[in-house]
Amino acid sequence: MSILIKQVELNGKRTDIAIEGNLITDIGPLDDACFDTVIDGSYSIAVPAFYNCHTHSPMTLLRGYADDMELMDWLNNHIWPAEAKLQEEDIYWGTRLACMEMIHSGTVYFNDMYFLLSGTVRAVEESGLRATIGMFLNDAAPNRDMFIQEGKELWNRRDTLSKRIQLSIAPHAIYTCNEKTLRECAEMSEKYGIQLHIHVSETMFEFNQCKEQHGGMTPVEYLDTLGVLSERTFAAHSVHVRDHDMEILAARGVHCVFNPVSNLKLMSGLLPLRKMLDKGVSVTLGTDGTSSNNNLSMFDEMKVASLVSKLANNSPIGAQVDEIYKIATQAGAEASGLNAGVIEKGRLADIVLLDANSPQLTPSHNLVSNLVYSADTSCVKTVICDGRILMRDGFIEGEAEVIENARRCAKRLMAAARG
Amino acid sequence: MSILIKQVELNGKRTDIAIEGNLITDIGPLDDACFDTVIDGSYSIAVPAFYNCHTHSPMTLLRGYADDMELMDWLNNHIWPAEAKLQEEDIYWGTRLACMEMIHSGTVYFNDMYFLLSGTVRAVEESGLRATIGMFLNDAAPNRDMFIQEGKELWNRRDTLSKRIQLSIAPHAIYTCNEKTLRECAEMSEKYGIQLHIHVSETMFEFNQCKEQHGGMTPVEYLDTLGVLSERTFAAHSVHVRDHDMEILAARGVHCVFNPVSNLKLMSGLLPLRKMLDKGVSVTLGTDGTSSNNNLSMFDEMKVASLVSKLANNSPIGAQVDEIYKIATQAGAEASGLNAGVIEKGRLADIVLLDANSPQLTPSHNLVSNLVYSADTSCVKTVICDGRILMRDGFIEGEAEVIENARRCAKRLMAAARG
Repeated sequence: MSILIKQVELNGKRTDIAIEGNLITDIGPLDDACFDTVIDGSYSIAVPAFYNCHTHSPMTLLRGYADDMELMDWLNNHIWPAEAKLQEEDIYWGTRLACMEMIHSGTVYFNDMYFLLSGTVRAVEESGLRATIGMFLNDAAPNRDMFIQEGKELWNRRDTLSKRIQLSIAPHAIYTCNEKTLRECAEMSEKYGIQLHIHVSETMFEFNQCKEQHGGMTPVEYLDTLGVLSERTFAAHSVHVRDHDMEILAARGVHCVFNPVSNLKLMSGLLPLRKMLDKGVSVTLGTDGTSSNNNLSMFDEMKVASLVSKLANNSPIGAQVDEIYKIATQAGAEASGLNAGVIEKGRLADIVLLDANSPQLTPSHNLVSNLVYSADTSCVKTVICDGRILMRDGFIEGEAEVIENARRCAKRLMAAARG
Repeated sequence: MSILIKQVELNGKRTDIAIEGNLITDIGPLDDACFDTVIDGSYSIAVPAFYNCHTHSPMTLLRGYADDMELMDWLNNHIWPAEAKLQEEDIYWGTRLACMEMIHSGTVYFNDMYFLLSGTVRAVEESGLRATIGMFLNDAAPNRDMFIQEGKELWNRRDTLSKRIQLSIAPHAIYTCNEKTLRECAEMSEKYGIQLHIHVSETMFEFNQCKEQHGGMTPVEYLDTLGVLSERTFAAHSVHVRDHDMEILAARGVHCVFNPVSNLKLMSGLLPLRKMLDKGVSVTLGTDGTSSNNNLSMFDEMKVASLVSKLANNSPIGAQVDEIYKIATQAGAEASGLNAGVIEKGRLADIVLLDANSPQLTPSHNLVSNLVYSADTSCVKTVICDGRILMRDGFIEGEAEVIENARRCAKRLMAAARG
C-alpha cells in the first residue's frame, strides 16, 4: 500500500510526500503513477500529528457527567460509583469514541491508563491509532486482583497484538500502590524495556502526604529511591516539583506529562513548564481523561499549556510557541519510542493535513503560533497514521455506529450508577 | 422570507422552529408548506448563538504576528508599527475574515473597538452579522483628530446603516483619554441612548497609576465620578476590581466584559468572576482581538473562562457551566440591547444548529457542560442571524474570496510595517 500526497504545503513550500508501508519514503517532486492512492494536497498544509501522552480514554462515556466540584466529592459521589458499573462493552465503545475524537483533532497516539483492557485493545486495533495500553495496578482498589489478572492475560498475549500497540506497566500512584508493587513495576519495566506510567505529584495533598509518610521526601525523591524513575517512566501531571525534583527527573530521563486543562479544572496546580524545560526535563503533553477536561483536543491543550506556562512563570513570557508545539508532537512521539513527530524521510508515516483555507490559519505569519493559539478540530481534514488513511476530508468510516453505541452504553451506565 | 427548522432538538426534545422576517415566530409542530425554506434539523441541536462583547475585529490580519512578549515590547515594537500602516481596505478584509471566523464558530454579534470605521461598517453590512461599532477616541494617539473625524462622519450617516449595526462611543481608556473627553462621551451616551465602550482596569499598571493620579481612586471609582458608568457602559476587561468597585458596577448596571484568554496571554490578571456574579455585577464574555488570543472562538473563551473562575476563586468550584454559558449567550445579547440569546417565540432569530453527532457532544449527560468544556468550531453546522442563513452545513458564500484578500492585505501590511 503506497500513498502520494501531491502538491501539499510543507514547511512553507509546495512538495509531494511519498508513503510506502508505514514509512515516509520520499519528499520532493514524485510521479503519481507509482502510487496506489494519490491525495490532492493543493489546499492543504501537512503537519506532524499529535501524541497524547496521558489519558483515560474510556472516560468519554462520562463526559459532562459531573463537573466543578471538590475533588473528593467528585470522585466519591460521582466518578467512582459510575466507574464501578463499567463493563467491557462500555470500555470498547468509550475508547472507540475517544479514538474517533482524537482522529478528528489530529491525534494518532495516546498513552492510556484504565482497566477492562480487552475492550481498549479491541478499540485501538479497529480504530487504526497507536496506543500504549497500561497494565493497571491499584493496591487500594476493591478490584485490585482483577486488575492484576487482566494485566497478566494481556501480557501473555502481547505477541498477538498489532505493532501499533505497546504495553506499559501502570501503577496508579504512590498513594494507592505500596512499595513492593512499585519496586516490582520498576523491575518489570527494566527487564522487558517497557514504559512505566504513573501519576506523580498531581496535587499538593499527595505532595504533603508523601513528605509526611516518607521521611520528608517529595513524591519524585521517594520514587527515585524505589528505582521507579528512568527514561521509560511517564510521570503524569508532575505539577508539584521542586528544584531538586527537576534535577532528578532530568538526570533519570523521566518523561513528565503536562495536562494543563485538567490541572486547572481540578485546581491541582500550575506545572512550572519554563523552569522544567530550562532544567532539561523531558516534558510531553496530554489531555487526561474527558471527565477532567472535557475533550481530547490537543489544540485546546496547547493553548492552555501556553497560558499556564505564563501563569507559572508570572510573566507574559512563558514557554514559546515552538516549545509548546514540540511537546505536543515530536517530544511526545520520541519519548514514546516512536520515530515520528516530524515529517521527514524515514520517519513513521503519521501525517495530518490541515485545511489551508481555514479562517483560524489565516493569515499565516507564523503557522506554529496559529496551531498553538488559534486552530481547532475544524482545521483538520485528513489524518494518516502508520501509513493508513484514518480520516479523509473529514470522513471516518463507521462513525455513526460509534456515536450510537457510545450513547447507548452511556445511558445504560448512568441507569446502573444511579439505580 | 420565512424559514422552518424541522424536527430539530431543542432543550432535549424534538420540535419545529418557525422564523418569519427576523423573528422566531413559533415553536412546535408546524406545516412545511407555509415556509420559503425548510431546513432538516433531524441531526441537529438548536442552541442560541454567541454574543462577543469585546473585540477589535480587523486585528485578524495580525494573528500570530507577535506573541509571548512583555506588553510594552509587544505594543511598541510590533503591534503599533503594524497598525500605523493599516488602510481602509485592510480593515474591510480583516473584518470580513473576523466575521467569517465568528460565523463558523457560532457567533452572530460583536462589540468592536477600532478605527478606519468605514471598512468595518462595509464588512458587517455584507457579512450579515450584528455589531456595535465604536466611534473610537484616543487623546494620546497621533491620529487623535482622524479618529474624531471618522466617528463624526459615521454618526452623521447613522440612519443609513443596517438595523443590525449599532454605534457606540468608544473612548480607549482612562490613561489615554482625558477627563473632558470622558465626560463628553458620558453625555453623548446619555443623550442618544448609545453604548459607551471603554477598557477598564485591565492591568495592575493602570490600576496603580489611576490611584496615584486621581487621589487614591480606583479606575472604577474615578470613572464613576465622571458619570461614565451606566447600564449603557461596557467595561472591557475589568480584571482588577475591589469590593467597592463591584458595588459601584452593580449599582450602576455596568456590563463588564470578561476576556479570559487575553487576560492570561498578556498576563493582565484574573477577573474574580464568582465574586462579581455573587455581587450582582452584569458580566458578559468577549474574545478581545486576535493578537492577544489568537482566535475569535467563544468556545475557547468559555472553557478558559471557567478555568480562570476556579483560579480566581482558588477552588475547583468557580462559576458553574450554566453561568458561563449564559454570559456567552443571553447575558451578552440582552446587555447589548438585543432581544436574543434564548430560543423562544418573539425573540430575534439568531440560532445555531450544532451537529448532534459530533464526538465532542457525545454522550449528552449535560449539553451545556459539553458546550462549555468540549465543543469547538467543528460542532457548528448552520448559523442564522436576524432571520437570515449565514452558514448552511458549513458553507459560507464568498469564503474563498475573503481568505485570498485577507492574505493579500496581511502580506502588504507586513511589508509596509517592516519596510
